[in-house]
Amino acid sequence: MSNISNVEKIATSAKKASRSLVSISTDLKNRALDSMARALIDRADEILAANAEDMKTAKEKGTSESLLDRLSLTEERVEGIATALKELIALPDPVGQITEGWKIPNGLLIKQVRVPLGVVGVIYEARPNVTVDATGLALKAGNAVVLRGGSLALKSNLSLASVIAKAAEEEGIPKGSIQSIPTADRESVNELMKMDKYLDLLVPRGGEGLIKLVIDNSSVPVLWAGAGNCHIYVHSDADFDMAEAITINAKVQRPSVCNAAETLLIHKDAAKESLPGIIEALEDKGVTIYGCPVTKKMRPEVSVASEDDWYTEYLDLKIAVKVVDSLEEAIDHINTYGSLHSESIITKDYKAARKFTNDVDAAAVYVNASTRFTDGGEFGMGAEIGISTQKLHARGPMGLNSLTSTKYVIEGDGQIR
Amino acid sequence: MSNISNVEKIATSAKKASRSLVSISTDLKNRALDSMARALIDRADEILAANAEDMKTAKEKGTSESLLDRLSLTEERVEGIATALKELIALPDPVGQITEGWKIPNGLLIKQVRVPLGVVGVIYEARPNVTVDATGLALKAGNAVVLRGGSLALKSNLSLASVIAKAAEEEGIPKGSIQSIPTADRESVNELMKMDKYLDLLVPRGGEGLIKLVIDNSSVPVLWAGAGNCHIYVHSDADFDMAEAITINAKVQRPSVCNAAETLLIHKDAAKESLPGIIEALEDKGVTIYGCPVTKKMRPEVSVASEDDWYTEYLDLKIAVKVVDSLEEAIDHINTYGSLHSESIITKDYKAARKFTNDVDAAAVYVNASTRFTDGGEFGMGAEIGISTQKLHARGPMGLNSLTSTKYVIEGDGQIR
Repeated sequence: MSNISNVEKIATSAKKASRSLVSISTDLKNRALDSMARALIDRADEILAANAEDMKTAKEKGTSESLLDRLSLTEERVEGIATALKELIALPDPVGQITEGWKIPNGLLIKQVRVPLGVVGVIYEARPNVTVDATGLALKAGNAVVLRGGSLALKSNLSLASVIAKAAEEEGIPKGSIQSIPTADRESVNELMKMDKYLDLLVPRGGEGLIKLVIDNSSVPVLWAGAGNCHIYVHSDADFDMAEAITINAKVQRPSVCNAAETLLIHKDAAKESLPGIIEALEDKGVTIYGCPVTKKMRPEVSVASEDDWYTEYLDLKIAVKVVDSLEEAIDHINTYGSLHSESIITKDYKAARKFTNDVDAAAVYVNASTRFTDGGEFGMGAEIGISTQKLHARGPMGLNSLTSTKYVIEGDGQIR
Repeated sequence: MSNISNVEKIATSAKKASRSLVSISTDLKNRALDSMARALIDRADEILAANAEDMKTAKEKGTSESLLDRLSLTEERVEGIATALKELIALPDPVGQITEGWKIPNGLLIKQVRVPLGVVGVIYEARPNVTVDATGLALKAGNAVVLRGGSLALKSNLSLASVIAKAAEEEGIPKGSIQSIPTADRESVNELMKMDKYLDLLVPRGGEGLIKLVIDNSSVPVLWAGAGNCHIYVHSDADFDMAEAITINAKVQRPSVCNAAETLLIHKDAAKESLPGIIEALEDKGVTIYGCPVTKKMRPEVSVASEDDWYTEYLDLKIAVKVVDSLEEAIDHINTYGSLHSESIITKDYKAARKFTNDVDAAAVYVNASTRFTDGGEFGMGAEIGISTQKLHARGPMGLNSLTSTKYVIEGDGQIR
């Protein structure tokens, strides 16, 4: 069998494990999650030792401080990862839920039942916590996982995966359900993307480059968490205090996340009275403004926005500001430059709210609220594997349901056509 | 703009049209479907003339009779196509349905609302009716379509598309909502598969080769209707009359379709008494049997099944037969060789039924019924775009809902984090 690659061997055995995973109970999954969490704490020393090796190599390579921070594990961080696993225990098991059911005239009873997807592949970059977070979510939804982390975190990831896989197996989870590809060469990514015979889903977790690579090359279906170029649109009749509070919150409460606002659009009739105040409030919080010509005219000290700014997800204390002539122009701007993530209108007008929520093409469209609420936890779904900006299968926060499929179960008593 | 290809121009304008399609009413869509159906009848002569040209070229090329049959249009077939369009009028509009809704502690009201996907690309082969069927379904779900039919049917497809596009536009459907790529070169398929900026979904309709090409190369998300290598499993305690009736129905009622049975599995304890009768009944209907060694021993005149037979979707009056030692062996066989389509167990045993429906990995799993019911019409969904054997987004018969996405609409009164 020397012509079968290591990646294919892993994928095949994960598929085999997934066949047994469809029958395990919620109780067993929950016990396994608990054991996995405890094992992380119990074996924190060896995990931290593996991470120290990764950190040493990364530093020698001159890795940036921000990347080192993402890579680094501490006792506290390991505890945080374990806690996140334990939180999955309380979430309802999606497997077995009957999503629809009806009887057809000949007496056949048709039920649509939620089932595991099978095998979920995860390709990720420097954050070692993804090893555990993704495994926990996939397992709770009844799936096997094949993990392929980034080269910088290779030793940390292998250590984490081996600790949780062992704990899960000892609890009775089928061997092969949690597997890591033990190399970080590019070829293993290429191979994994072609394993459509064994993998039911591939989730890229990382930057735009990784996501684009996977979308362009994977024959395995892909779910991804895309960029968030989110907008706040202040309509002509908005409550200006609310507009200011929401803009400030959406921009500065946590600028580095995908549901933070990146552009403020403001109706010309609202701009005169409210824009200077909003800009001052933003500047007070240390935000740099990139303004359209009208904004620049009103506040000559702001930087000038280029065409690129409208497309940019700053993930930083920066915001682009544009004065628009109409609701329609705001909607057009969002549908042209936005990334289909989270968009909010501030208005008192029923018709404007209705038009905005109908016409804006995005995963989450808000009226009079901050875009920062687009989040599995805030939505009440519990943990999420990311926020989908695609339109198939899952859109918006991807909770446990997004890691499941359905099947029809049809009960008869001899029906034929 | 000479560096923008024709395919990209079409995709861009379809995207533009899709922005307007999100706001049109169900009434308008239904009026358009009615006009399109009437236009097909009114302009049948020019459609048939275009088809005659395609047929002439196809015959000159030595095209097979079965392919010529698929390509051929008659007055009756055009009427059938028009009738199928009219039947869409009665189906409920999926757009605007609220699929879930809840309030979170801070008072935000979250609704998940069904919305159109946007632009649906369809790549298909010789059947000109797909031009109209796919357009009707996509339009009813609020989408624009970009059609790319096979070269043999090029003139027929362009004629059909132009007739229905004109009728739809005259009724008020935005220009650009229904578009055909006016060439059938391979390059246009390659280009279409990379239009992820404009296309929200790509549906390949045709043989395995086309589907594989699209799965392997498309960066646009794909929904496909895969092969149906369906099984009937007769458990040890089955009602043998029922087993025979269902096997006959699943195999011979319409052997050329994907939900027809291709393999009969039978428990060894049932085989002795019932297999000879079932085989005789199949042979009476002209079915050729490919048997496992045990079957061959019982009925020496049957052909021998090779490993390939277990994988084969005959779509013909042929069936593979295997005697199995246990329910588990039957399930393993199906999960190994099946194509995740439709599988049926014939049994009186509660536990066996439960295990089979839980462990078999397929879009539709039956107890005591023919696999032939896996069909949008039979399920009561109305028209379908095919039967999905994939696990993401849509599994089983793909009705109007599979051509939609959802978005979250969140209503607040100033909530911030």
